Amino acid sequence: MIVQKYGGSSVATAEKIRGVAERIKQRVDRGEKLVVVVSAMGKTTNSLIALAEQVSQEPSPRELDMLLATGEQVTSALLAMALCDMGIPALSYNAFQLGLTTTGSFNNARIMDLNLSRLRMQLERRSVLVVTGFQGVTPEGDVTTLGRGGSDTSAVAIAAKCGCPCEIYSDVPGVFTCDPNRVPGARKLDYITYDEMLELSSLGAKVLHSRAVEIAKKYSVDLYCGSTFSDERGTCVVNSLPEWLEQPVVSGVTTDSNQTRLTISRLPRSMEALSALFTGLAEQGVNVDMISTVNENGHSHLTFTVVDATEKAVLRTVRDVLAPWEGWSVSEDRNVVKVSAVGVGMKSAPGVAARFISALSRKGIAMLGTTTSEIKISALVATEDGNAALRALVEEFGLGE
Amino acid sequence: MIVQKYGGSSVATAEKIRGVAERIKQRVDRGEKLVVVVSAMGKTTNSLIALAEQVSQEPSPRELDMLLATGEQVTSALLAMALCDMGIPALSYNAFQLGLTTTGSFNNARIMDLNLSRLRMQLERRSVLVVTGFQGVTPEGDVTTLGRGGSDTSAVAIAAKCGCPCEIYSDVPGVFTCDPNRVPGARKLDYITYDEMLELSSLGAKVLHSRAVEIAKKYSVDLYCGSTFSDERGTCVVNSLPEWLEQPVVSGVTTDSNQTRLTISRLPRSMEALSALFTGLAEQGVNVDMISTVNENGHSHLTFTVVDATEKAVLRTVRDVLAPWEGWSVSEDRNVVKVSAVGVGMKSAPGVAARFISALSRKGIAMLGTTTSEIKISALVATEDGNAALRALVEEFGLGE
Repeated sequence: MIVQKYGGSSVATAEKIRGVAERIKQRVDRGEKLVVVVSAMGKTTNSLIALAEQVSQEPSPRELDMLLATGEQVTSALLAMALCDMGIPALSYNAFQLGLTTTGSFNNARIMDLNLSRLRMQLERRSVLVVTGFQGVTPEGDVTTLGRGGSDTSAVAIAAKCGCPCEIYSDVPGVFTCDPNRVPGARKLDYITYDEMLELSSLGAKVLHSRAVEIAKKYSVDLYCGSTFSDERGTCVVNSLPEWLEQPVVSGVTTDSNQTRLTISRLPRSMEALSALFTGLAEQGVNVDMISTVNENGHSHLTFTVVDATEKAVLRTVRDVLAPWEGWSVSEDRNVVKVSAVGVGMKSAPGVAARFISALSRKGIAMLGTTTSEIKISALVATEDGNAALRALVEEFGLGE
Repeated sequence: MIVQKYGGSSVATAEKIRGVAERIKQRVDRGEKLVVVVSAMGKTTNSLIALAEQVSQEPSPRELDMLLATGEQVTSALLAMALCDMGIPALSYNAFQLGLTTTGSFNNARIMDLNLSRLRMQLERRSVLVVTGFQGVTPEGDVTTLGRGGSDTSAVAIAAKCGCPCEIYSDVPGVFTCDPNRVPGARKLDYITYDEMLELSSLGAKVLHSRAVEIAKKYSVDLYCGSTFSDERGTCVVNSLPEWLEQPVVSGVTTDSNQTRLTISRLPRSMEALSALFTGLAEQGVNVDMISTVNENGHSHLTFTVVDATEKAVLRTVRDVLAPWEGWSVSEDRNVVKVSAVGVGMKSAPGVAARFISALSRKGIAMLGTTTSEIKISALVATEDGNAALRALVEEFGLGE
């Protein structure tokens, strides 16, 4: 038994859906049993969100999930039809039918359970079940969705629960050292570790959703990323690289433009103010990154980054918690991008940070902030420097062809 | 408590959905509790069927229902959002959530039950529930749909179960003596009986689905048809007309172009052949209407009508069951329309059939067949004669303005 997942661009049209059905048929003909998780067709989710915004300025989160969940149901029904048409008696299942229960946090729910017995029973009688990705139901029966990229999470969660491998298919033939659309020489990786993939996904690489990688790591799910449109070999996401493979210092570089940089000028000197600020942000559940302070003419200025989506809430919180003090001001800059290099090899190779920084400096790229972990280094640069920074890192760490 | 139903053209765009929400708000402001049943937006169901036919020549009935059910879920979520946006905390419910169970005949399921306690409990806490029309689930959890016009049936069934009135809103402001798009002088009726409405719906009038009227009659549901887009008074569908109202002989006339006329020429003389034919058709569940035979030069020819959709199956059956005999042939004619006059007053007024027939004859319209019941007379005429026949009947029975 194998879980497969096909992304939105793989099922964007009726013709592509038939193409996916053909691929599935080849596997069934080899005697495999498949649970196929699908996303909504093409840009359906975006269109539905646009429709919601036409009827309501701030759509009810419960109703938004009820709306968005239809996208995956459409694809799953169509794919099951296409398979039936080819003589494979597939059935589609939605979250209700599968007992895929989640927490009640609409638009960003987490999977809690899955009725495995039903799924297993059906797979005894037939070779393919098509399952709606991205959606769940609460124990009370409300429809939920798992957030952007949630279909990856659905697929890996089902594979984890079934103890079987998971194959993620998209329009990209695997994981690359760098986004091939931005750096022509980007190289496809045969293997990448869970930890590296987790960092790359969190840092902007779109090939896999980071929550899906988290679950894959936790339950040691055999994970494979490949192309829907070719038989080219993809990338295996593994616990550790095969021993015969030389461990690169840096496995991949990526950019994340979903960042806003906030600057609080003339920050009040009191420790109380700083503490109130970060406590307030933490209470809002905001992730603050790349914090730095600059002293200038006896005043200190604080900068940090947050993800774009939380920016409004962050500005509100900043104004609220700093209200008792006077003389400060806050400004924002969305024209920034986070450039990161990731590699488990960094742990044992000293001087990677120095190489990273000097590679950017040599190209005259200003770093507005940096942050590091055991296996990654990130720098914030101006948006217009993003591509040059990527190319400098690809060259420095030998990630090109 | 009141059940309302809004048809596809009433919710065709985001703007129209907001319009419906405004109408609902007015009722809520008056202190009413509403269960609002909605259809898919505009032509969504047709688009989904077209999509299905792109992936499969003969879409699996189960998967087709899974696909089509998404249309109503989209509308219900959007309407609930629009209501929330106006300060009315509405919730949308689909068939799973409502326990709206049906038989397992996909594409044409019949409602079996409804979890009333859940619905009642929710209505204690809020004023509006928005419910997906047209869809159900089998006891095993498969998604079903109720067939064309099924949202009317959903609405009336919920009203019947709750013992409350039902209002059906569409782009037509009520039931007319005749289709106002075809006969300009058509008059709107204030009242019509269940029996008349049932005949009119079965004979082609699109304002209400005949199964919905059947359920309304069976459970004496107060039924009202009105316009979504105006406050003009609509039509009450009642058990019997108010006593003060003069009972017209004919309440309405209608046409049904969904008819195919089959002719079997040189029908074998044996009674066995005729018996095999009608037994064969009955076993296929085909409704045969307007049967007539003509004798000519020692041969007899049989004609009858069936609804367009069953035509292929009927032709197959005819060829199969008459295979043992020789010399006959079968031909079909889709260029026909059934024109009908309906009125409970016919029961007590003799000579209505004569008036009906002579009204058409006077205009030189050939009748290819006729059929009558206690409260209706139908004639089959060539499609090009349809409008003239309608106008002749409107004039004869005083149905114009």
